[in-house]
Amino acid sequence: MNNFKTIELVDDKLKLINQTLLPLREEYVITDDLERISVAIERLEVRGAPAIGVAAAYGLALALKNVSSDTKSNFEKAYNRLASTRPTAVNLFYALNEMKKTFDSYNGDDLYKTLLQRAVEIHEEDRVLCDRMAQNGLNIFPKNARVLTHCNAGQLATGGAGTAVAVITKAYEVGLVKHVYADETRPLLQGSRLTAFELDKSGIPFSIQPDLAAGVLMQQGKIDLVITGADRVAANGDAANKIGTYTLAVLCRYHNIPFYIAAPYTTIDRECATGKDIKIEMRASSEVTSVHGVQITKPEYDVFSPAFDVTPNDLIHGIITEEKLFTPPYEF
Amino acid sequence: MNNFKTIELVDDKLKLINQTLLPLREEYVITDDLERISVAIERLEVRGAPAIGVAAAYGLALALKNVSSDTKSNFEKAYNRLASTRPTAVNLFYALNEMKKTFDSYNGDDLYKTLLQRAVEIHEEDRVLCDRMAQNGLNIFPKNARVLTHCNAGQLATGGAGTAVAVITKAYEVGLVKHVYADETRPLLQGSRLTAFELDKSGIPFSIQPDLAAGVLMQQGKIDLVITGADRVAANGDAANKIGTYTLAVLCRYHNIPFYIAAPYTTIDRECATGKDIKIEMRASSEVTSVHGVQITKPEYDVFSPAFDVTPNDLIHGIITEEKLFTPPYEF
Repeated sequence: MNNFKTIELVDDKLKLINQTLLPLREEYVITDDLERISVAIERLEVRGAPAIGVAAAYGLALALKNVSSDTKSNFEKAYNRLASTRPTAVNLFYALNEMKKTFDSYNGDDLYKTLLQRAVEIHEEDRVLCDRMAQNGLNIFPKNARVLTHCNAGQLATGGAGTAVAVITKAYEVGLVKHVYADETRPLLQGSRLTAFELDKSGIPFSIQPDLAAGVLMQQGKIDLVITGADRVAANGDAANKIGTYTLAVLCRYHNIPFYIAAPYTTIDRECATGKDIKIEMRASSEVTSVHGVQITKPEYDVFSPAFDVTPNDLIHGIITEEKLFTPPYEF
Repeated sequence: MNNFKTIELVDDKLKLINQTLLPLREEYVITDDLERISVAIERLEVRGAPAIGVAAAYGLALALKNVSSDTKSNFEKAYNRLASTRPTAVNLFYALNEMKKTFDSYNGDDLYKTLLQRAVEIHEEDRVLCDRMAQNGLNIFPKNARVLTHCNAGQLATGGAGTAVAVITKAYEVGLVKHVYADETRPLLQGSRLTAFELDKSGIPFSIQPDLAAGVLMQQGKIDLVITGADRVAANGDAANKIGTYTLAVLCRYHNIPFYIAAPYTTIDRECATGKDIKIEMRASSEVTSVHGVQITKPEYDVFSPAFDVTPNDLIHGIITEEKLFTPPYEF
């Protein structure tokens, strides 16, 4: 395991590694203030759907730390504030609603401790899910595998070891992985910043590359398999993930390379029949016209920048969950 | 035509638009100094294989402007300095060797004027090639075409109207093009900076997008055809171009979208049998770990960043030259 923690409870305060500064600076946000925790989610200081859920659960507990009266209105206010931070993250609502169940059913004498205990359980559950996914993914690796991944689906994105990166890391630990290629992942560069940081911390040999260099790596026979995380998986196995995942899946099909998704059950949306039902968020044009605050082209140019794309189930070789490795046809 | 000039001879000085500052600042390098012209090529203030050739031809003439003795050694010194700037650009050597032929066969009394006249002819020839390519490309467009292009293959890259962008612009002028999608083109962002600048100047409706968003545009049925330039085309039609072109060609195959190359005869290398014989230049890792001088990830991370990739001829629907539209099997 890496020698950093994405989310930690220390002396009744939430300690978050500030992901906007990685990998150049390793700084932490330490706070028990609801507003500061909400802002950390909004600013992407903590990001990744499962990690957001865990941070929000702690935030909701800490909001009740020194509250002895009007607990109901204080809880609701905190719930609503946290729910407003990243409205599309499924796991955020899962975590908030689990906390609400605890609040609603509570009738003892230490509300804060009870809520905090539930947040710790949600965090722990996420750790267990990651470990099980990692274990269930081991069978997909040939020996000396050269693996490509996209965006960040690692320890920084979850309360545990990650999804796709956890699978890769586990396979590395048992001697199955030779090299990892991480797409830089424009526009926000989570691959070259965050996945690279994690792989470096784990001592796994890796390279980063411009996103479109993935095609050349495959053409040159340098990739044995591709694994990514997912933001939402539909009931038929269509998977929404960071923009570019679909192109990787098409490249894999052309080069006859298996393409896998790793995602816990909390990411599988059984209410959503197919990928067509997944609404795709569009990102601000400034993420393309500037990089890290430096203007690179004219801000008034029209920009097409979807946050995610949807990979149809027929391009997905398998979906690794905490339960097992699912293969087509997908029935969860 | 756009209201800017990439390369111009003004009062016996070379005037180059400084492409490193575009599109945010429109500044010019005006010089008759050989070293300054050489540095302009090295710094990519002037770039694009045909444009480099034209700039070098003018540079070689201007190097002899005030020289009355030792013309041979001065010519050779200038030739060698310019030849050292971007050793992989085919057109650079074509232009330098044309100038050398003129020098070797010269026996009149105004050497400088003779050389300058030859440089003007090389520039003029490039203009004519671009216009002919544009004309020969018209047949590939359906009505209201939505076209995607990659990197910069326009007026800024040549001594004329460009290659791929000239074809698109001509088609727009005759009412065949509805919208152009320009890949931003990591790592050096020639698409969002230079192609966007050209399209904007020409008044053509366009958007820029992160490179991997091209797959989504195709998936959504928003692209009718793709046209790019080429850095070198082998005798069998395999084409080397900016990294990412190969992935676009694979995406086109998957989505049944035609993929075209536009390139003048000076780019077709008949000595090169197939794409396997094309040596691919690797770029500095700093272009991926930093953007416009701002560090975005650790400079010590290993980076895989080829400058070009090779698209095999079977993925290329047609190659537009100044002679005609070639279709498979390619015989130039």
